[in-house]
Amino acid sequence: MNMPTFILDPRIAASSYLIRSLSLCQVRLQNDRRWPWLVLIPEVADRREIIDLSEADQTRLLEDVRTASEMVKTLAAAMDFEVQKLNVANLGNIVAQLHVHVIARNDQDPAWPGPVWGFGTAVPFEAGEQEKLLNLFK
Amino acid sequence: MNMPTFILDPRIAASSYLIRSLSLCQVRLQNDRRWPWLVLIPEVADRREIIDLSEADQTRLLEDVRTASEMVKTLAAAMDFEVQKLNVANLGNIVAQLHVHVIARNDQDPAWPGPVWGFGTAVPFEAGEQEKLLNLFK
Repeated sequence: MNMPTFILDPRIAASSYLIRSLSLCQVRLQNDRRWPWLVLIPEVADRREIIDLSEADQTRLLEDVRTASEMVKTLAAAMDFEVQKLNVANLGNIVAQLHVHVIARNDQDPAWPGPVWGFGTAVPFEAGEQEKLLNLFK
Repeated sequence: MNMPTFILDPRIAASSYLIRSLSLCQVRLQNDRRWPWLVLIPEVADRREIIDLSEADQTRLLEDVRTASEMVKTLAAAMDFEVQKLNVANLGNIVAQLHVHVIARNDQDPAWPGPVWGFGTAVPFEAGEQEKLLNLFK
C-alpha cells in the first residue's frame, strides 16, 4: 500500500514563503505586509480538520502553535508592529488543506477588530523585505 | 495570596447559553441560528492568549476542542445543517477573555467562504428552539 504523500497546496505556496519545518508543521511567512502573519501546515497528506489528525499529531500541532506564537512576536518586532492580540485559527473554507493561521493584531491595524481573512487585498512585501524577515529565523 | 476567580465575560454570557463544563472549558451555544456555533471558555481567570495557559491546560483545551468538534456535528444534524468544514479559532479582538470558537460551515451558509465574525447581525433562536438544542447534550 502506498501512503499518500504530503504536497503543499499551490495557493498556499504562492501566497507565502517557507521558513522551516517544526515538529509537525511547515511554518510559512504570509506574503502580506499588513500583518505579522504565519501559517502552519501539518506535513501530513489528506487532512482537512484538526480532528482528522491523530491525537499525537494534534499535540505536535499545539506545540507548533506555541512556537509560532513566539515567532510571530519576533516578526512583529521586526515589522515595528505592536502585538496586542494573537489570532490563532483554522478556517480552511477556501483552501481545503489543513492549515492554521497565527496572526498578530492591534487596534491600529486595517481590519481591527474584524477578522483579516477576506479583508481587502494582500499587500506583498517589497523587494528584499521578506528576505530580511526570513533571516530572523535562520 | 488570593487567587483571581474566573468570571465569565458579560458579553459572552449575554450572547450564548451554557451547555456544560468540559475538561478545562465551559462550552456554550452561541445564540445565532445562522450557524451551529459553540464557544469554549477556559475556566481560568485572567487569560487572553492560548499561550497564557499552562502547557497542561493547553492540552486540556485541545481535548475540549476535540469534544466540541464532535458536539457541533450533533448540533448541526439537529439544525439540518450539512457540515462541510469546521472553523476553530481564537480571535478575541473584541472580548478579551480567552475563548475559542468551534463553528460548522458549508457553502450555502450566509458568509461562505468568508469568516462569520462581524458578518451581519446575529439571528437569535426562536422561543424554545435553544432548549431543544441544549437538550441534545443532557
